[in-house]
Amino acid sequence: MKTNPVIGIDVGGTKILAAVVDEHGRILGRSKRKTIPRKARESGPDLVVERMAKTVQEAIQKANISPSEIAAVGASAPGPVDITIGRVFGAVNIPGWGRAYDLGPALSRLLDMPVVVDNDVNLGTLGEATFGAARGIDDVLGVFVGTGIGGGVILDGKVRRGFRWGAGEIGHMLMSCEGKHADVEALASRGAISRRLRQAVEAGESPLLADILRRRGDDRITSGVIRQALEAGDLTTRQIVASAQDVLGLHIASMVNLLDPQCIVLGGGLVESLGEAFIGPVRETAYANFFLQQDAHQVQIVQAALGDDAVVLGAAVLAGGQ
Amino acid sequence: MKTNPVIGIDVGGTKILAAVVDEHGRILGRSKRKTIPRKARESGPDLVVERMAKTVQEAIQKANISPSEIAAVGASAPGPVDITIGRVFGAVNIPGWGRAYDLGPALSRLLDMPVVVDNDVNLGTLGEATFGAARGIDDVLGVFVGTGIGGGVILDGKVRRGFRWGAGEIGHMLMSCEGKHADVEALASRGAISRRLRQAVEAGESPLLADILRRRGDDRITSGVIRQALEAGDLTTRQIVASAQDVLGLHIASMVNLLDPQCIVLGGGLVESLGEAFIGPVRETAYANFFLQQDAHQVQIVQAALGDDAVVLGAAVLAGGQ
Repeated sequence: MKTNPVIGIDVGGTKILAAVVDEHGRILGRSKRKTIPRKARESGPDLVVERMAKTVQEAIQKANISPSEIAAVGASAPGPVDITIGRVFGAVNIPGWGRAYDLGPALSRLLDMPVVVDNDVNLGTLGEATFGAARGIDDVLGVFVGTGIGGGVILDGKVRRGFRWGAGEIGHMLMSCEGKHADVEALASRGAISRRLRQAVEAGESPLLADILRRRGDDRITSGVIRQALEAGDLTTRQIVASAQDVLGLHIASMVNLLDPQCIVLGGGLVESLGEAFIGPVRETAYANFFLQQDAHQVQIVQAALGDDAVVLGAAVLAGGQ
Repeated sequence: MKTNPVIGIDVGGTKILAAVVDEHGRILGRSKRKTIPRKARESGPDLVVERMAKTVQEAIQKANISPSEIAAVGASAPGPVDITIGRVFGAVNIPGWGRAYDLGPALSRLLDMPVVVDNDVNLGTLGEATFGAARGIDDVLGVFVGTGIGGGVILDGKVRRGFRWGAGEIGHMLMSCEGKHADVEALASRGAISRRLRQAVEAGESPLLADILRRRGDDRITSGVIRQALEAGDLTTRQIVASAQDVLGLHIASMVNLLDPQCIVLGGGLVESLGEAFIGPVRETAYANFFLQQDAHQVQIVQAALGDDAVVLGAAVLAGGQ
């Protein structure tokens, strides 16, 4: 029996991705546009949902199929979501979307298709657990390192959404000692690394990195810039990245000591840019801090495999009824 | 239809408790003995399992029923357990039981009854979630503060045991800052508090506590002694306990940010001894550090209700087929 294709949509702070996806996770057509156009006079969820609908229609055209063939639509949102009614409680990194908004019903009206909505990082983890690095594994933690740190928890094959739709805030787990509190995101995200590197550049502690930024003519410390600084042998960058790796390794060990899952998938811009050079030391610290050492290495700590497609594919899985 | 009673057994480092339990969680008869008798020439799991069987037989006699009426036996072990085969991987706080031992089959042979085995803190949490403070709640974290800190995770009504039977090691989740690593147990258990208090007494920083110990003629810093020192207004004790409360509150917030459960049950000797005076500040720190603040107070943070019976009752629930 042939299953009809579904739509997966990834809505982030900067761009909307939509794809037509078949039951094997193959992308039959895709489209992309800015979440908010540069010259927009207003912003907010009403504008975003219209742009989502247009992006979907374009993806359907590119797939060269009829809209009537689409079984359902899965959409992500960058914030907590009540998936039973498609309500996004707020998407703080999209201008004008601080409040709750019923994204599912609104998009469903525009497209005249059934729509399900979930948090983006939940869906990224679901994508990786279905078609990516953790394919076929039932218990998966997803840890995505970018400007912040997002995460998803899949246990017994089901996304764990939580009593208040608040589960998976992996970046907001806390580390503390002697009265100081900090969350993992503040210690180990690409954003945190970049902030510390900027301080180092300003303090004259990282001449190699300062040189890289000068030659680029752009002072943003992106994942690519961090990689260049490491490759150039910048000691300060190496130390700052190592400190983040240490925190992430401990953090993964903590979650393993609590939940003992079979697989941890590490993704996000920084991880993709640095690859095994980043994951290796994280893995080593994690294994060393598992309380149960027996069969420690059977717990996989792997790099995400789907890149920018993880969320659209996860959204497609959700639309397919998982 | 009447359900036959079951046996619940709690095996700890010092004592074995056994109880005959009906389907409503009522204890029809109970018995208790030392895990290892003081004058025993040898120790180890073979001796413990024999003493477990005798304790069960006594509890059955006290309940005034026939052994043939017992439907099944649930037993706890102080260590990780493969519940599919009743294997305890090691019970480090019972002398001579460092190695793996098939407790379920051994006890089943002695009693001629079906036996299921699980980790003690998992069962304590299951007891509280079935008959105690979290009765009828599907998503429950149990945090038991004693010499160490043990825990259990129940999600969607099921005890979460983990891929390697290693889940629930709540006391071994890690906190770090500035290169120092410590687990929650090392920062916030009754054992950790007692160690710091002993240092304070030896350094002459806690004359009130030193006085209490002198008058008792026993220098062990038990939960009861900690309560007395707090009631006497000992400032050092108050500070050391407050630091543990702060760590526990952060730790609970961390787990809520990851899993967003409906209820956290706090138990163990220290919590029972200090009650709300202990839990109040823990709860306050926890709520303040939830990432999702919406409906924060709907997440219950409550004191365990079953005391020493939590594990036998959880073991009875397990024997009843949960």
